[in-house]
Amino acid sequence: STSTSKPINKHDATASPATNCLHPLHRKFTRLPHLAGTEQNLRYAEQIGKEWLEFGLDTVEMVPYDVLLSYPNKSQPNYISIVDQFGSEVFNTSLAEPVPEGYEDVSNIVPPYSAFSAKGQPEGDLVYVNYGRTEDFSQLEKDMGINVTGKIVIIRYGKIFRGNKVTNAMLAGAKGVILFSDPADYCAVGVQSYPHGWNLPGGGAQRGNIFNMNGAGDPLTPGYPAKEYTYRSNLENVVGLPNIPVHPIGYNDAIHLNMGGQIPPNNWKGTLDVSYRIGPGFTGDFKSQKVRMNIHTNNQVTRIHNVIGRIRGALEPGWRPRRTIIFASWDAEEFGLQGSTEWAEDNAKMLQERAVGYVNADSAIEGMYTLRVDCTPSLHTLVYDLTKQIASPEEGEEGVSLYESWHKRDNWTNDRDAPRISKLGSGSDFEAYFIRLGIAAARARYTKNKETERYSSYPVYHSVYETFELVDKFYDPTFKRLRAVAQVRAGLIFQLAESQLLPLDVNQYADSLGKYAQSIVQLAQRHPQEMTKYEVSFDALFSAVGNFSVAARDFHERLQTLNREDPMPVRVMNDQLMYLERAFIDPMGLPGRPFYRHVIFAPSSHNKYAGESFPGIYDALFDIKNSADTAKAWEEVKHQISIAAFTVHAAGMTLTPPA
Amino acid sequence: STSTSKPINKHDATASPATNCLHPLHRKFTRLPHLAGTEQNLRYAEQIGKEWLEFGLDTVEMVPYDVLLSYPNKSQPNYISIVDQFGSEVFNTSLAEPVPEGYEDVSNIVPPYSAFSAKGQPEGDLVYVNYGRTEDFSQLEKDMGINVTGKIVIIRYGKIFRGNKVTNAMLAGAKGVILFSDPADYCAVGVQSYPHGWNLPGGGAQRGNIFNMNGAGDPLTPGYPAKEYTYRSNLENVVGLPNIPVHPIGYNDAIHLNMGGQIPPNNWKGTLDVSYRIGPGFTGDFKSQKVRMNIHTNNQVTRIHNVIGRIRGALEPGWRPRRTIIFASWDAEEFGLQGSTEWAEDNAKMLQERAVGYVNADSAIEGMYTLRVDCTPSLHTLVYDLTKQIASPEEGEEGVSLYESWHKRDNWTNDRDAPRISKLGSGSDFEAYFIRLGIAAARARYTKNKETERYSSYPVYHSVYETFELVDKFYDPTFKRLRAVAQVRAGLIFQLAESQLLPLDVNQYADSLGKYAQSIVQLAQRHPQEMTKYEVSFDALFSAVGNFSVAARDFHERLQTLNREDPMPVRVMNDQLMYLERAFIDPMGLPGRPFYRHVIFAPSSHNKYAGESFPGIYDALFDIKNSADTAKAWEEVKHQISIAAFTVHAAGMTLTPPA
Repeated sequence: STSTSKPINKHDATASPATNCLHPLHRKFTRLPHLAGTEQNLRYAEQIGKEWLEFGLDTVEMVPYDVLLSYPNKSQPNYISIVDQFGSEVFNTSLAEPVPEGYEDVSNIVPPYSAFSAKGQPEGDLVYVNYGRTEDFSQLEKDMGINVTGKIVIIRYGKIFRGNKVTNAMLAGAKGVILFSDPADYCAVGVQSYPHGWNLPGGGAQRGNIFNMNGAGDPLTPGYPAKEYTYRSNLENVVGLPNIPVHPIGYNDAIHLNMGGQIPPNNWKGTLDVSYRIGPGFTGDFKSQKVRMNIHTNNQVTRIHNVIGRIRGALEPGWRPRRTIIFASWDAEEFGLQGSTEWAEDNAKMLQERAVGYVNADSAIEGMYTLRVDCTPSLHTLVYDLTKQIASPEEGEEGVSLYESWHKRDNWTNDRDAPRISKLGSGSDFEAYFIRLGIAAARARYTKNKETERYSSYPVYHSVYETFELVDKFYDPTFKRLRAVAQVRAGLIFQLAESQLLPLDVNQYADSLGKYAQSIVQLAQRHPQEMTKYEVSFDALFSAVGNFSVAARDFHERLQTLNREDPMPVRVMNDQLMYLERAFIDPMGLPGRPFYRHVIFAPSSHNKYAGESFPGIYDALFDIKNSADTAKAWEEVKHQISIAAFTVHAAGMTLTPPA
Repeated sequence: STSTSKPINKHDATASPATNCLHPLHRKFTRLPHLAGTEQNLRYAEQIGKEWLEFGLDTVEMVPYDVLLSYPNKSQPNYISIVDQFGSEVFNTSLAEPVPEGYEDVSNIVPPYSAFSAKGQPEGDLVYVNYGRTEDFSQLEKDMGINVTGKIVIIRYGKIFRGNKVTNAMLAGAKGVILFSDPADYCAVGVQSYPHGWNLPGGGAQRGNIFNMNGAGDPLTPGYPAKEYTYRSNLENVVGLPNIPVHPIGYNDAIHLNMGGQIPPNNWKGTLDVSYRIGPGFTGDFKSQKVRMNIHTNNQVTRIHNVIGRIRGALEPGWRPRRTIIFASWDAEEFGLQGSTEWAEDNAKMLQERAVGYVNADSAIEGMYTLRVDCTPSLHTLVYDLTKQIASPEEGEEGVSLYESWHKRDNWTNDRDAPRISKLGSGSDFEAYFIRLGIAAARARYTKNKETERYSSYPVYHSVYETFELVDKFYDPTFKRLRAVAQVRAGLIFQLAESQLLPLDVNQYADSLGKYAQSIVQLAQRHPQEMTKYEVSFDALFSAVGNFSVAARDFHERLQTLNREDPMPVRVMNDQLMYLERAFIDPMGLPGRPFYRHVIFAPSSHNKYAGESFPGIYDALFDIKNSADTAKAWEEVKHQISIAAFTVHAAGMTLTPPA
């Protein structure tokens, strides 16, 4: 690797932050429920601001926005009933989760609900649609002849973002969606349910929004910050909010619902593998069960508060980083990344001109196995350099670096002998910064072993059992894993702020572009006849990647001979580095997704959590065999190839010497 | 004024360029017709490149694009006929203009035609619609009860861009459009027709495209450069090209067409004022005349060539400007600004990062009276400073500055004692640079006295009589006016390239924003009841303008104390100056006009030549009394006020010190 970054101080990197500091901080901010828009959440925000000032930040401000949030109606709880032939409710799902030990006296625990659900009491036959993916609906309709129009569908959590499940159900004509946690997806084998282990208990259910705003932030003010004076669209005109009721349940309740041929056994304890219920075993007897949803959730414009702290960059005496560091505590992430997106809209002009990088800090731990990093290709080298200087947090790995520990557990591929780094998808606050504004971005956390652990996310995700004790007892009793994650994040920030030359490696971008181009052409080549018939060529894209690679190599060669004593040429090359990610932004946006503007990366249209490379081409190719107008669909593929080729070429040209 | 620019050398400014150099250069490039896409045009482009290299530019390149142009069919000429009741053509319009003296042997003079006209031979009753403005069509329909659906309309040139006339006619349902030059609009009183004077002869007609692409450039590749590999839309899917035939004629032909009550006298010699024919005198007997249009013009993808020359900015020995200067000779301006727009699309990423200013050079002379400058507000101060150091080109004004000469002839207003500077509209190549990309821009030319000279543009505009001799004999025999215009343009370029601090005055922007806000609120206040009923407030906009003004004032105060020896703070403030215009760009674009992205300025929706301030609000207010859904229309006004307020505020914030 050819990193240009200055090594960070090894001593600092391994000693700080002290694990005995992490423990009380973690405890303090997890004691009370703090749903966005509530009084308690504002108190925590104020506490964060206060502590940041004590830590020595120069300034801290609370930045409010008035955004659309969604809450259950306190006087009319949400639940689902099985109804008999007379319309009587013969079974009702739970109104809340059993509260975990130690939290019995805590009030204001919001019951499980699907934020932004439509209100309503639809009644209808129940149809089970597995994970609710495009292919699940397609299998149900095409292979099994089952139409869900006017039905209520029941879908298990996992595999894809829940909002995509709801969109698929709406497109298929369903009039309500029940989401449930299947032990096959939310229980690890051989692990006990919380509080005895970290598996999801049968009474737990997964909260979470089901919002498909494709990067718009607040649904009422797309493209603009939700300030007091900002014009708000009518709720009726908003695209992306579901127009049918949606509700989540746990498996203790799900067990009572008939999902077709294979009724789940009633001895579910969270250790059974019952992962496949659609298909040959399905008997199609969904008509035997009618359910009613009772959903009273309200959308409500609510004030949220980001906390924004700053360490000013040095143009004055005393130690300071070379560049300004902004710390942001984002409000309302769980309601569709609203705090972060509104602030991005509010500050877009400043960020476009000046931002060199964005480092995300969402949940630091989702497993106990190894490090997980998703980032833009130009940060790969810095991530590797940093992790070589951070200690492994694992027992028995004294003297082993985080890099080695990670590499051993998650090698990239046979082609590339290095720890795996993934593409950024979405589902966290980096989205607007990376996908809309084109700021180099990264996220890091500790994760599970994806090869062997087949459950989704982590079992108690978004349930009431996601507690301080879960971390303290099971995930990271020594707090060393959390410290290692903090060191990776802080190392990224430190180097981005302090290196004289920005620690971005454009050769890595060139390599990644080459791989993405290979991968998308392989997808297209599944249709050799159509490629010939419609004269589809990827030549322009490969030629653009070639030009980009040459420009990147030349750029790094010029960096070697740069006179670092002269501030102007340093600034010129830093500007080129900073603006490279920006050069992938197309103000036209992706088709139908105007706020997803990065031509190389977008959240997958089929699963918001996953990142897709060359998303315009990918979406044009998706399911192209079944498109209504094949010729037109291939024309769109050609159109998207042309946009990708132009963008890659033009981005490469920004790396050539100014002339 | 508080200009920060270094005065230019007075000697250089008044002596150069020598008028005896301008004469042969002007002669050389006007001798032969050079329609975009033709062999002769390519030869001239190559000649320009050759001369630029001889003048000492570092590099010159020819940059080709393949764009949609439009040409008459050589074997089937375009004309219009009056047909009798048997369908026989009893009168045909001329196929070409009488060639002016001295050009008899020149081949390849394209006959008058409307570029991008649809083909067709529509036949129908003729209806005269004055200038074809929105209000003309409205008057015809509402006040006189005449519907043009299925009719052929005849519209005189002038007042608004011809493309807007055609759009209005299409919206009204016309099936063909005849455009003609009325002597009222194209002849000055007391002036003879060319070659004896500079008035339009009766055989002359005005060419010009009738294209309404709203900034898209090549119609087949909107948003992307028209390179060989670029995907091209189907012509049928292109919005903005007329779908009816359109053709221009001169007044010798127009005289034969019945335009209603007042038949023009047949002794027209270009000196009569027959400016108003619609209205009380109109007898509505248009049914008495049927005409047939015979239009065979073809759209054709054609290669064009921009010439791009560079003087590299100094980071090496020898005199060089501080910043790089790029010279561009744009191809296909007359076909809808295609050469300049495609290059802007091609280089958008580089320009967004690095461009400090754009100076347009289209026709330098359209009158003999005084200077005319249209520019962004931040260039006002520089324009005044420069013109104070340039000599008046007028006879009898020896020792008088261009500023004084200009000021005397065209004072701004009672409120502001300075020469008038106008907003940039469109109709020339600055459009993509200013309106789409947000680069500070200016244009300068010599103009007529708008108070007393009532003809449109200049009489022989776009006719075959627009010759070298026209300038040499009538408009500028000494070439001193052309020199003065060249000095203004070159002075702008020199200062933008060479001043240590960019010569942009953000206080002027603040002043202008205040005036535009006043002006738009006055427009709204014509509807006091609706303002109250729909709770329309401009408070947020005025508050944003206030914030901007404070930020601008503080910025200029900090400039005073800036340590100019230290390159980094100079660079920081220059970046803020450079990016201020960029901060007014909204990637969302204006409603229905995605490539017009400047929130403060856009070409008027009703006349492309004119600039409109706060165009989003203006268009929302336009004709609001007649909107189908009044409540919805006022909601849109509020929406646009909110966008304008946010943008002005956010742009102002880019002027605050980095923190």
